Amino acid sequence: MLVDKIGEFGLIERFRKAIKTDASVVKASGDDCAVLKPVKDKYQLFTCDMIVEGVDFTLKDNPCLVGRKALAVSISDIAACGGTPSHAVVSFGIPKNTSVSYIDRVAKGLFSLAREFKVNIVGGDISVAPKVVIDTSLLGVVEKDCLVLRNGAKAGDIIFVTGQLGGSITGKHLKFTPRIKEARYLVKHLKINAMIDISDGLLADLGHILQESRAGAVIYEAMLPVSRQAKGLNDALYSGEDFELLFTLSPLEAKKLLKKELLRFYKPIGKIVEKRSGLKLIGRDNRERNVRPKGYQHF
Amino acid sequence: MLVDKIGEFGLIERFRKAIKTDASVVKASGDDCAVLKPVKDKYQLFTCDMIVEGVDFTLKDNPCLVGRKALAVSISDIAACGGTPSHAVVSFGIPKNTSVSYIDRVAKGLFSLAREFKVNIVGGDISVAPKVVIDTSLLGVVEKDCLVLRNGAKAGDIIFVTGQLGGSITGKHLKFTPRIKEARYLVKHLKINAMIDISDGLLADLGHILQESRAGAVIYEAMLPVSRQAKGLNDALYSGEDFELLFTLSPLEAKKLLKKELLRFYKPIGKIVEKRSGLKLIGRDNRERNVRPKGYQHF
Repeated sequence: MLVDKIGEFGLIERFRKAIKTDASVVKASGDDCAVLKPVKDKYQLFTCDMIVEGVDFTLKDNPCLVGRKALAVSISDIAACGGTPSHAVVSFGIPKNTSVSYIDRVAKGLFSLAREFKVNIVGGDISVAPKVVIDTSLLGVVEKDCLVLRNGAKAGDIIFVTGQLGGSITGKHLKFTPRIKEARYLVKHLKINAMIDISDGLLADLGHILQESRAGAVIYEAMLPVSRQAKGLNDALYSGEDFELLFTLSPLEAKKLLKKELLRFYKPIGKIVEKRSGLKLIGRDNRERNVRPKGYQHF
Repeated sequence: MLVDKIGEFGLIERFRKAIKTDASVVKASGDDCAVLKPVKDKYQLFTCDMIVEGVDFTLKDNPCLVGRKALAVSISDIAACGGTPSHAVVSFGIPKNTSVSYIDRVAKGLFSLAREFKVNIVGGDISVAPKVVIDTSLLGVVEKDCLVLRNGAKAGDIIFVTGQLGGSITGKHLKFTPRIKEARYLVKHLKINAMIDISDGLLADLGHILQESRAGAVIYEAMLPVSRQAKGLNDALYSGEDFELLFTLSPLEAKKLLKKELLRFYKPIGKIVEKRSGLKLIGRDNRERNVRPKGYQHF
């Protein structure tokens, strides 16, 4: 059965039945807007991500995982700011010849991840489109003293990542777990100076921190947790969609972190230095070379 | 010059320079999330709308008006709930062979409407896509006693619309002014029982109110403000994208409304009746016929 059999409102009805919301939601899907209770004392986080068939996924990928990814990339952004995700709206662009069962499975993956991370899906939009397009806008909250941005890295900081890098294209980009739990632990127990999620590539995203923090960095090749799926070092340095967190903290705080049982698997991969030193990679042979913070670009 | 010459980050840089935000924004575009100060005592409204090339606009349309429409449709949703728009994030899907000047003009139209309605553009996403796709997610606020939903219409209520209906496809769908000023006046000075913006068509959107309010309605053909651009009555009844507000209020409140100088041009077009009476149209010949709340559907 194709989507044009049940129509736009038929699809919306199917979605609405599958969704439950919590007490923070005054009115969920089904009116002109969702209505939410105000957030007190915390900052509100707001982010959006669009994924497109043929760019971020293909029709051969498991539809559940496609829906999952549509939300996971935004949850990862909330994690990178130290927050907790709360409410989302989702826009679907759907080709006319799409089967209802495909959309059902995309929705199933998205709603299932939403439940896992206690995200209320409170609205959306459905449009005809030449390819499948899913845009997720996500709200989150963060205590004022837990907010972490890209601009706080200081010379001397140690740089960590939360997991392995490279080779995400072989599957992780569809299955990764957004690092909310890890981020919340970090911001509650330690003083994190800067944080970002690695979506464009390790060096590109480190580059964003360096730019915003007006700093330089040194990365040690020998310390990099290169994934088994990565095609060598360059893949770990430059390929996108790892969705691990990269964060920096003072040497004192880093020592505390390394003592914590839960987080001892986190890898220090380098350190923040003065801006004039730029971005350097120290090879296994101990030679240093300048590298550029390039990564995945859409154009 | 095509977008792939300046790249994703080049585009983002151009956008960021064109955007100013107010004191409610702790951190705008340029981090993983936008960071907003909390809203006190008011409800928060949240909505999204996706517009797609070839469906909601064509490449022959003025790009400024395309960008304007992308935001205007969401502002209209905030108006329909009685609120004021505040913060938006915008996702762009852009074909590789798109010129930078096209995107600049789309952005110009969008940002210009944002300034007009004091909407802070606080983030976004850019992706390659087979056609131009723009998804806008908009936050707004509304005082708790000003919130209007679709579910409050009562038998006896008079139904009004804020302007002419039909023929929007000839241009209004790209140029309409979201009825924020009108909605705010209404919710502050009168007791509005139900409200919706007419995006799917008069009868379809009235149908949404009737469904949510468990009510019926009678519409008087002679009272309908049919636009000059409309191709007759059916166009005014069924065609979408008028983006006028339809609202209902008690006869007593309606009398007050009709006395108000500012709003005397608003047209009563019918009344809410018991659910069992269904939806009826009274013709100019005074005959009544049953009509169906059908309208524009994407599939």
